[in-house]
Amino acid sequence: MIDGLPMVVPEPGLPDRVRIHEVGPRDGLQNEKAVVPVEVKAEFIRRLADAGLATIEATSFVHPKWVPQLADAERLMPMLDGVAARLPVLVPNERGLERALALGVREIAVFGSVTESFAKANLNRTVDESLEMFAPVVATAREAGVTVRGYLSMCFGDPWEGAVPVGQVARVARRLLDLGCDELSLGDTIGVATPGHVGAVLTALGAAGVPVERLAVHFHDTYGQALSNTLAALRHGVRVVDASAGGLGGCPYAKSATGNLATEDLVWMLDGLGIETGVDLGRLTATSVWMAGHLGRPSPSRTVRALSPQEL
Amino acid sequence: MIDGLPMVVPEPGLPDRVRIHEVGPRDGLQNEKAVVPVEVKAEFIRRLADAGLATIEATSFVHPKWVPQLADAERLMPMLDGVAARLPVLVPNERGLERALALGVREIAVFGSVTESFAKANLNRTVDESLEMFAPVVATAREAGVTVRGYLSMCFGDPWEGAVPVGQVARVARRLLDLGCDELSLGDTIGVATPGHVGAVLTALGAAGVPVERLAVHFHDTYGQALSNTLAALRHGVRVVDASAGGLGGCPYAKSATGNLATEDLVWMLDGLGIETGVDLGRLTATSVWMAGHLGRPSPSRTVRALSPQEL
Repeated sequence: MIDGLPMVVPEPGLPDRVRIHEVGPRDGLQNEKAVVPVEVKAEFIRRLADAGLATIEATSFVHPKWVPQLADAERLMPMLDGVAARLPVLVPNERGLERALALGVREIAVFGSVTESFAKANLNRTVDESLEMFAPVVATAREAGVTVRGYLSMCFGDPWEGAVPVGQVARVARRLLDLGCDELSLGDTIGVATPGHVGAVLTALGAAGVPVERLAVHFHDTYGQALSNTLAALRHGVRVVDASAGGLGGCPYAKSATGNLATEDLVWMLDGLGIETGVDLGRLTATSVWMAGHLGRPSPSRTVRALSPQEL
Repeated sequence: MIDGLPMVVPEPGLPDRVRIHEVGPRDGLQNEKAVVPVEVKAEFIRRLADAGLATIEATSFVHPKWVPQLADAERLMPMLDGVAARLPVLVPNERGLERALALGVREIAVFGSVTESFAKANLNRTVDESLEMFAPVVATAREAGVTVRGYLSMCFGDPWEGAVPVGQVARVARRLLDLGCDELSLGDTIGVATPGHVGAVLTALGAAGVPVERLAVHFHDTYGQALSNTLAALRHGVRVVDASAGGLGGCPYAKSATGNLATEDLVWMLDGLGIETGVDLGRLTATSVWMAGHLGRPSPSRTVRALSPQEL
């Protein structure tokens, strides 16, 4: 890094602090074909926490048949004892919740869809049926004192349906809050959003009684739009941003190698804006370079590439 | 492309129209080692114009020894007769201007530096000496009725000096305007800017009497920041944005393959915001894929990759 860069210049209307919800170990790795050894996953999470990430989505309790990469959840979680970060896990249904609770998990997430096409493709259910499936999961988790995040996928566009009406996003968001979700993450699963659209969705959610304090945004960089959409969301009051170390992960429905917003690119912008994240960019970049070595290909993050030449 | 995407949602405070200053044929190609045949360059420019780009920086009249890739300027320009676009060219000095004027060029650009280190490295002069060198070039061009653009490089950071004081940018900008430049392009040559910094520089320029109507921005995507910085500049009144088709080009001083903001990623955002550019994204992407074939490597533009799988 060049001393004194990025230059810190705050901007009015933006928050002092943003919480990054790191999704690399779960969302980033889940589509990797070659199974990453559980020891490497544990080390990855430990390094992310050491770099200052305070929330790290660790794994998924989906049936091993569907996501073989994360079939080691029962082995992974006990290896993370003592990691100084919140470690939410994805839980698809009641069986997954039982497995997570048996391991002492304190935070879970359910993965819903705003569109019928993706609910059918991903969950083999209608949107309403999937919400019914989540209802007992959320209720049981809450009774156990477990925090629940609700993911809403395809909030800005869908490969089958095209543009998604903002009212449809608001309806599903309202339902997930009513089920008892503590936080909602608005996913641009195929990366098609632009800043005005982000503002329109957030405004519609506000009008539907969804407080912005309970929202996170989850942008994909498929069309290079993730960071400017994040900036738009911050201007609208969002304070929690999902990102993936090194830009790991991709959506199998997009014809592109690029996936999640890279945590490093986000931290560069937030550092420049003087917005606290608690993350040390140098340590984070070193972690992504180390992980890229295990995966055998360079990180797609622009910031990682600029700061650390990778010979892969 | 998926029908109906990006969804068009305008945002208050942004312009109705942006003029894209396409720099691919000059800035994008100048660092390519293998010389691109002049016929391919002419075809590239013709295709860019057909895709709706109204300003295309065509080549440079720098001494062929320094930029061998653009040594064919005298052959290229006559091949562009009838291309329906403004075709500015870079001109380093009086000799370059003579060559350009002899070919009937109607718009030129001079390439200055805000920092002493880069002026020394790139021009082997101090900043003041380089401005003295430009003075007769600008004066002669203006007398001939030729429009002059002034590039300011290293406006946001410099690999040797780190952060660049905003007052230093304003001073050089003011001097270039006083010399007679019609338009100034603020370059983030190493891609380190963030949105608050962009606002601070534009505010300082306004205070120094540089009208925003005469400004363009030229962001590099080295750290993934180019598009969010562009959004910040649009909010501050900038209406001209430099970009490079397919993201062609890179800065030899940055350890990264990524260079200029990709025109396609910019157009995706502006299309979504309902901001007119006159550009047809499908034709532009096809042009970048065609050019990537000639260069033998895939375009780094996220949008190009998402819209057109490239087998390179």
